[in-house]
Amino acid sequence: MVAMAPALHDKAAAAVLPEEISIDSCGIEPDLEDADAIGKLRGEREIVLGRNLHDQCFSITEPEHDDEETGDKDVYMAGVLARYRKTLVERTKYHLGYPYNLDFDYGALSQLQHFSINNLGDPFIESNYGVHSRQFEVGVLDWFARLWELEKNEYWGYITNCGTEGNLHGLLVGREVFPDGILYASKDSHYSVFKAGRMYRMEVVKVDTLLSGEIDCADFQRRLLENQDKPAIVNVNIGTTVKGAVDDLDGVIKTLEDCGFSQDRFYIHCDGALFGLMMPFVKRAPKVSFKKPIGSVSVSGHKFVGCPMPCGIQITRIEHINTLSRNVEYLASRDATIMGSRNGHAPLFLWYTLNRKGYRGFKKEVEKCLANAHYLAGCLRESGFGAMLNELSSTVVFERPQDEAFVRKWQLACQGKIAHAVVMPSVTVDKLKVFLKELIESRSRLFPDGKIVAPCVAEELGAKNCACVKHSSCS
Amino acid sequence: MVAMAPALHDKAAAAVLPEEISIDSCGIEPDLEDADAIGKLRGEREIVLGRNLHDQCFSITEPEHDDEETGDKDVYMAGVLARYRKTLVERTKYHLGYPYNLDFDYGALSQLQHFSINNLGDPFIESNYGVHSRQFEVGVLDWFARLWELEKNEYWGYITNCGTEGNLHGLLVGREVFPDGILYASKDSHYSVFKAGRMYRMEVVKVDTLLSGEIDCADFQRRLLENQDKPAIVNVNIGTTVKGAVDDLDGVIKTLEDCGFSQDRFYIHCDGALFGLMMPFVKRAPKVSFKKPIGSVSVSGHKFVGCPMPCGIQITRIEHINTLSRNVEYLASRDATIMGSRNGHAPLFLWYTLNRKGYRGFKKEVEKCLANAHYLAGCLRESGFGAMLNELSSTVVFERPQDEAFVRKWQLACQGKIAHAVVMPSVTVDKLKVFLKELIESRSRLFPDGKIVAPCVAEELGAKNCACVKHSSCS
Repeated sequence: MVAMAPALHDKAAAAVLPEEISIDSCGIEPDLEDADAIGKLRGEREIVLGRNLHDQCFSITEPEHDDEETGDKDVYMAGVLARYRKTLVERTKYHLGYPYNLDFDYGALSQLQHFSINNLGDPFIESNYGVHSRQFEVGVLDWFARLWELEKNEYWGYITNCGTEGNLHGLLVGREVFPDGILYASKDSHYSVFKAGRMYRMEVVKVDTLLSGEIDCADFQRRLLENQDKPAIVNVNIGTTVKGAVDDLDGVIKTLEDCGFSQDRFYIHCDGALFGLMMPFVKRAPKVSFKKPIGSVSVSGHKFVGCPMPCGIQITRIEHINTLSRNVEYLASRDATIMGSRNGHAPLFLWYTLNRKGYRGFKKEVEKCLANAHYLAGCLRESGFGAMLNELSSTVVFERPQDEAFVRKWQLACQGKIAHAVVMPSVTVDKLKVFLKELIESRSRLFPDGKIVAPCVAEELGAKNCACVKHSSCS
Repeated sequence: MVAMAPALHDKAAAAVLPEEISIDSCGIEPDLEDADAIGKLRGEREIVLGRNLHDQCFSITEPEHDDEETGDKDVYMAGVLARYRKTLVERTKYHLGYPYNLDFDYGALSQLQHFSINNLGDPFIESNYGVHSRQFEVGVLDWFARLWELEKNEYWGYITNCGTEGNLHGLLVGREVFPDGILYASKDSHYSVFKAGRMYRMEVVKVDTLLSGEIDCADFQRRLLENQDKPAIVNVNIGTTVKGAVDDLDGVIKTLEDCGFSQDRFYIHCDGALFGLMMPFVKRAPKVSFKKPIGSVSVSGHKFVGCPMPCGIQITRIEHINTLSRNVEYLASRDATIMGSRNGHAPLFLWYTLNRKGYRGFKKEVEKCLANAHYLAGCLRESGFGAMLNELSSTVVFERPQDEAFVRKWQLACQGKIAHAVVMPSVTVDKLKVFLKELIESRSRLFPDGKIVAPCVAEELGAKNCACVKHSSCS
């Protein structure tokens, strides 16, 4: 008999959802890199395991002998699930901090939910396991290859479990093409890029960023010149996690060429997690295209497209996969994916949405998101908050609200003194109005005398975007 | 406008499912390691991309301007999905070769399918993203930690995307504990073990196996003695992919000790993909337990438990994760998982099944599977087929049927001259009877004169399990 958590011991008691637990009060989100905060979170760099997470979780209990007759267990579980559903509805409603489009309707696919669909291995090598969705997966991959201008017979790719897997794959391909290559990535890159570097035992060089969050090509040049003897494997961000900054791909390529790196001595992986799917629809945006000397592009499927579970798309040149597969002993497998078994439902969700919305649909949504993001940034500034919005982005960065309950309610992602809201298709102007109203009210409570003091975020967002006494008077 | 595949160009035409495509006629499944076959599959070790997979996939097409009015697109998509569903029903019915339990009913969870549930990062570090299922995930992890005898405050773990991710994680932990350790794995280990070794740039030593598929401890001893100066990171199989063999964990530990490896100089990862969840319920089976000096255990969730998408459970000692996290700069993240975003639906499926079935329910199912596997192996031998069944396993290995259409219909996993059927809870005696009847009929067609010649599989399955002229007369 498994021990039950005290709160759940009495089946007759109503199923009580664990309260939202915050490990500490700083409200940091785990998708951001912040070594200090990690130390804090873990206290002496030990994991503070649980903090009652064990007690507050929904324990699994051995069924009683007479459960089938009494139905008690079913009643208990139905209660837990119904309350959980209510929480999800609530939490979905107040959500601004993460780049997930929560606006989707996959009712037409519910008839397929109970099949064990597994695209194990390579999308282009049929498995004997028949319950797969490769015919949808390849359709989705073809669509993305076309978006990034690579012919059907020139690309290889697969649908991944998330953006991280795309980065892990792209950088592994880079390392296989250049086993002694150095990995260059701006310090604003997603932490999975650095994780990959260390997992793969690669030499990693961190490059500075501009205030916008873009890679600083001048610093990149300095770093390259220090390491001219080794090939370069470069991570280019198409939308950074925190500031939504888009690295200047053309600038990166020019810098490589200026430093004497010919195309057979560098490999570029584009991490397009969120913005890789938005940028093609933004006027004036630099173009991600395989007509340029890039090696791979990855994008998340659960972000702009929207999907009930995380997933992503990874596209690379077939010649690179052949480099991998020529060294079969290396991979010791007939597939070049990171994972073996792969979720076969994800391709169905993507296939469905891409078919329904098409290029035109995405274009319309991207335009709406950018307009709404500008609206939000404008209102924040008018209300005396420091705020920044990169031109090509729908990620609005602003001073971190000091009311932690408010941060949690709206699920804002924070890093140090700043927070961000990501304006996705599921974020309407009405929602933004409610958010702004509550944000202003929450600030008022902190300054009951009405004399509001805005924190200085000039270092993070630039003096012109800062609303503190010193900088607001300058601008 | 995206190009449409010819067959799908006319929306008015009924949606036609692509035929099942076999890359070549050898019917090899991608979950098995077989370097020669990879070469063959890829021809000159180049990927033969597509083989019409592009043409036969369901292309994504740009919606017409009047689609919303005419509803043509919806009609087309509904047709594709309905036919796809029919195929899934059919393919699910005839399925013996893969260790997936297809018998589950998650109707109670359908109310949650449309939420974007994401357990990003560490299960024990709360994220600001509120639409998660950590309270269920930790419940599931607690259950497994208890199964493998590790206290709640002594373990760390998470729900992975598949068995491969568990192996990637366990072996990464091993490498972090012993950065210069050598990875030992039997040649029957899953290919992801060797993939991990190469990804992580570890020295890898392949160890021989016995005929049963178990690791050969005598060979293991020889290899250890050749490398006494370096720590050992050992992959122990709790059920190999092909033969369902269970490595002798106690024997492995004893061999390490006999060779002078104290507990601070080795790390054992147990790959329990399928059998890790069955063995605890088998009488006489050796025990996987953290009371022994092991470092991590992984198991798949979509195999014996059954789940619509691949998932797995990874459990390790918290002290090892603290080794990882002390070196925060290393991971450059505040979580110690391989993936960043994680599917929040998988914990719900597992929580639901574990709660409903409990230890007793699993025990009953394991007993049924083993009995049915013995039934199948017995019938095969009686009918003159070479066949083998390891004592602790429900994986029946037998001579590969020569009729490839039959292999594909029943989705048998094959390697060289052998095939296997995995008897899961969804495999009933009635299904086995149909399978046997069709297998015998299919063989009869190959020998119209009634003089059946069984192939020799003595090398693969042992002389006593072989039905060829030479060996059947000996036994």
